[in-house]
Amino acid sequence: MKVPPERDAYGQMLLAALEDPSNVVEIVEREDGFIGASVMGPKLYFAPFRRWPAHHRQAMRYVRGCVLDAGAGAGRVALHLQERGHDVVAIDNSPGAIEVCRRRGVRDARVVAFADLGRSLGTFDTIVMLGNNFGLFGSPTAAKKSLRRLHRLTSDDARIIAESRDVSSRGRADAPWHAEYRKRNVERGRLPGQIRIRIRFGPTIGPWMDYPMVSPAELEEILIGTRWRLAHTLDSDDTYVAVIEKT
Amino acid sequence: MKVPPERDAYGQMLLAALEDPSNVVEIVEREDGFIGASVMGPKLYFAPFRRWPAHHRQAMRYVRGCVLDAGAGAGRVALHLQERGHDVVAIDNSPGAIEVCRRRGVRDARVVAFADLGRSLGTFDTIVMLGNNFGLFGSPTAAKKSLRRLHRLTSDDARIIAESRDVSSRGRADAPWHAEYRKRNVERGRLPGQIRIRIRFGPTIGPWMDYPMVSPAELEEILIGTRWRLAHTLDSDDTYVAVIEKT
Repeated sequence: MKVPPERDAYGQMLLAALEDPSNVVEIVEREDGFIGASVMGPKLYFAPFRRWPAHHRQAMRYVRGCVLDAGAGAGRVALHLQERGHDVVAIDNSPGAIEVCRRRGVRDARVVAFADLGRSLGTFDTIVMLGNNFGLFGSPTAAKKSLRRLHRLTSDDARIIAESRDVSSRGRADAPWHAEYRKRNVERGRLPGQIRIRIRFGPTIGPWMDYPMVSPAELEEILIGTRWRLAHTLDSDDTYVAVIEKT
Repeated sequence: MKVPPERDAYGQMLLAALEDPSNVVEIVEREDGFIGASVMGPKLYFAPFRRWPAHHRQAMRYVRGCVLDAGAGAGRVALHLQERGHDVVAIDNSPGAIEVCRRRGVRDARVVAFADLGRSLGTFDTIVMLGNNFGLFGSPTAAKKSLRRLHRLTSDDARIIAESRDVSSRGRADAPWHAEYRKRNVERGRLPGQIRIRIRFGPTIGPWMDYPMVSPAELEEILIGTRWRLAHTLDSDDTYVAVIEKT
């Protein structure tokens, strides 16, 4: 679903950061009331390639052909791959994000929700979902469905390059309130890292999003029956990038 | 009212900033859903005298004798005045704030809510309420009552040095959502700047606080019948410090 402008807290945050990236904070509220504030987040959205985390730079080695940048944000990945000569389509469900992509020079940027992807955008060789954007797949059930659809929208040797986080093995996640939230998720039949969050910016409250974080093992479970397989993982302290190929 | 530890978002923010002031954001949520995030706020709470805003430094010239620092936060005012040789009592309704004051060397720091101030703390010559702490007075009615009480708890030539903001004349406040909020306040019989806010930090949601911002004219209105008068104002671009003396 496209985000209506009056609820586009994420896009408004990116537009503000485009004016002055040093002064913008990304505020993420989780359904249990936990609130996170990131100063580094907005900076990363605008970072040039040399300032990216190492595993993001490494991930670019697996990119080939026509690229879909899903959840493009401020367009850093699209801009980099465009410069390297790839055909890139950048999509985001946030109109503000797509405006920022365009202003920064992304040639083909469109307000399209990941779940609404169709054949009209063409066939892709690589789908990039950095910045924990594996979360765009939503619940495991929705993810299986989307993965089958992406199988048809991509070339035979296509790759999905998606970032996620193993919430049960990472340091920061071990705070008692995070552990409690993971436990409640499991109790109600969700993955431990299946978070429900929304962005807040000034007067604007974004829509709730189901945005799961999955371990490599959980990812492999989701891939069963989709004709995709986990080919590589590129690790960092906090997150990992999965390189997913067709079986 | 003292803030119970499980709701002490403000104190937890200060404790985190004591560890690493560069990495902490102060998140203030207003009752209409507006959310503000300040990176500078936590830095100011820990700033040494030479880094204070000019009108805060000027305000210190009006301090004499025994001082009550009301809403002491991380104790920057109490520490400065203590160094200058004043007897200082620092109070805050946040247990975390008072812990930070003590760890930083404030000699007399107590968890006391401003509205609960009594004779047991002694008689003061100066009451300091910087950082928009005029807001601690609460509604105009509550403020009048507290001012009469403070008259009895202070020496004959005592001063109250309190910071506030004229919300109707300041630049930032002119955003449409702020104007709308001020209008709604007036419609329900409140001062335009009579904001209701709470602090959020990680999993912790602070209690709602009525925290009015008043213009000098509104302040003079509140002082009527309290045997206090507005003697000086020290202006800045954003806020002003009122020096209030007995009539």
